[in-house]
Amino acid sequence: MKNKESGTNINLGNKCSQIAFGWAKQTFGNRTGKAGDLKQGIEGAFSNVIDYNGVRLGITSDGIGTKVELAERTGIYNTLGYDLVAMVVDDLAANGFEAANLSNILDVDFLDAKIVDQLMKGLAEASNFAGISVPGGEIAELGNRIGGWGDRMHFNWCSTATGILPEELPEAIAGQTIIPGDKVISLASRGFRSNGFSLLRKVLHEKLGENWHAEKYDDKYMWGEKLLTPCLIYSPLITKLIKAGKEIKGIAHITGGGIADNLNRVLKLTNSGALLDNIYAPHGFMQKVQEMGQIGEEQAYLIWNMGNGMMLVVNEDSVEEICDLITQSGYDCKIAGEITPKQEIIIQSMGNEPQKLIYDIKSGQKI
Amino acid sequence: MKNKESGTNINLGNKCSQIAFGWAKQTFGNRTGKAGDLKQGIEGAFSNVIDYNGVRLGITSDGIGTKVELAERTGIYNTLGYDLVAMVVDDLAANGFEAANLSNILDVDFLDAKIVDQLMKGLAEASNFAGISVPGGEIAELGNRIGGWGDRMHFNWCSTATGILPEELPEAIAGQTIIPGDKVISLASRGFRSNGFSLLRKVLHEKLGENWHAEKYDDKYMWGEKLLTPCLIYSPLITKLIKAGKEIKGIAHITGGGIADNLNRVLKLTNSGALLDNIYAPHGFMQKVQEMGQIGEEQAYLIWNMGNGMMLVVNEDSVEEICDLITQSGYDCKIAGEITPKQEIIIQSMGNEPQKLIYDIKSGQKI
Repeated sequence: MKNKESGTNINLGNKCSQIAFGWAKQTFGNRTGKAGDLKQGIEGAFSNVIDYNGVRLGITSDGIGTKVELAERTGIYNTLGYDLVAMVVDDLAANGFEAANLSNILDVDFLDAKIVDQLMKGLAEASNFAGISVPGGEIAELGNRIGGWGDRMHFNWCSTATGILPEELPEAIAGQTIIPGDKVISLASRGFRSNGFSLLRKVLHEKLGENWHAEKYDDKYMWGEKLLTPCLIYSPLITKLIKAGKEIKGIAHITGGGIADNLNRVLKLTNSGALLDNIYAPHGFMQKVQEMGQIGEEQAYLIWNMGNGMMLVVNEDSVEEICDLITQSGYDCKIAGEITPKQEIIIQSMGNEPQKLIYDIKSGQKI
Repeated sequence: MKNKESGTNINLGNKCSQIAFGWAKQTFGNRTGKAGDLKQGIEGAFSNVIDYNGVRLGITSDGIGTKVELAERTGIYNTLGYDLVAMVVDDLAANGFEAANLSNILDVDFLDAKIVDQLMKGLAEASNFAGISVPGGEIAELGNRIGGWGDRMHFNWCSTATGILPEELPEAIAGQTIIPGDKVISLASRGFRSNGFSLLRKVLHEKLGENWHAEKYDDKYMWGEKLLTPCLIYSPLITKLIKAGKEIKGIAHITGGGIADNLNRVLKLTNSGALLDNIYAPHGFMQKVQEMGQIGEEQAYLIWNMGNGMMLVVNEDSVEEICDLITQSGYDCKIAGEITPKQEIIIQSMGNEPQKLIYDIKSGQKI
């Protein structure tokens, strides 16, 4: 499918990922029976399970994409650290790993010490929130290989996080015990996660002009500030639930691909489906972007989280007490729906044109 | 010091690294007594030692900088994987870690499946050479945030590698047992490592014009091909020596900062010095670049490896047998000098204007 609105080609992206995975597979045998042995049980998982002499390690990498432009436009640099941490530690959490360390790479065109200071301050704050340490990092000056908006330092920022599977878990959480009747809890998001910003920027540019970030969103905020809203980090909550002995059967981190694609990764091991008839509605500013860009429900729910940052599958009997513990921990949640035996994900959408979006589990395609 | 020739500012780079480290330190306490606890013994080391429930893990991150432009210029994409792997696994090896896994992030402006295929093929081949597996990776389309040479796909490529400290080692190798009289072995490099390419490109552009890569170097090679020469990966050799019970007291991976800066990291724990009066001479094409750019010995030895890719400090009594094992393993080495009690590194340089380069161990500065 060509995603014409954002200018990115999803099919080509998938093809390139498959090419990379094809070559990567040729290296898996290098660690068989040694430290760093890759466990193959959960292909398509959010993070990888690697055995280091009995320690079950998780490793995952990601960047914050073009959300960086929002910092360049607003001059606010001390919140992107939350986005950087969220993208990787929540991919670890999605398989049950307790995130522990993060190593980051900051590519810049030229250096501005004040901007670096604000970025790293935000990274430290987000790391303290997530309970992880930053043992290492690298700053690379790459001149005209890095571009962006405006005249200040431009940069791209990515990281790799490692974590450990808590003793409480016999194996990584990958949806393997899900049964019909299980409940799906949705954790509220704070705004856009660090994906889907190419489309966002395109819509706002077309509707509000080159300096769209400085246009008023409401009496208090400009558009740039609203879109920069930092990601909420769920990983400490997930670790807390696991250490409290709560059984979480599957966890979907809702990033690119939206609810359907990411929940599908959790359901496909058991060929289950889900009926989600009580999800969170998108934030006001998400809905406004959807409206301005005349983005249909299907596309909006494919690209953005639409108010639902993470979804947990739990036993029906324990859903209330788990929701209580989540709320006590300072996160907002609701029972969004339940697991069904039919191999479909049905989402009662809550955007500008509420409708039933139905996806086939096997193909991952909308029906 | 302003490195005028390359256009990068080393002092500002160091300042920004210090800023980043200052903020990172505020996160170290987050893992005290937990998995992912950072061991603070070897500040300034090439890689970090992290305790995961008794497993001593090493983690390090780096990218291949502007060497990428050489692939864009020559259209040869299947060798950069060796550079990517070398930069991180050899930083692990420099502290004794056996590299095991690598996670990579490829940032592109737009996707070209054929180029991605060639890059990942090279990464797989280099990983097989290094005996590591590639459990994960990420490809990010960042549009005009990524720039480069020519009209094809532009990209920046970085990775994070993890490894394990072999049981044979009581602790990470960090130069802690070095004494005067120990010998310094130099391992021959194949060419430039993946650093110092901004200056390289500037010199060649000024001397040979915009299409310098297509100018003849000799009857067989163009300049672009010579500079693209992939990095030799030392990590399997280091692991082999350690597993064979050979005592390696200190290991310097010669990247940015050259022999002096990187050997200094190994010597400063014991306040030793080194007299290096028998190092490898630079490769012919290195020497030619030095000549074309009228780069002085001091600068050349600060930015490039000048023929010496890695240096090992070993006991005088075992140096011959270790050299034999290195040679049998297919690597070239020579006894480059020895450890001295005086806190200076003295390098008898072998570039265009051979001379004694003397550096103070405490300040790291040239005397």
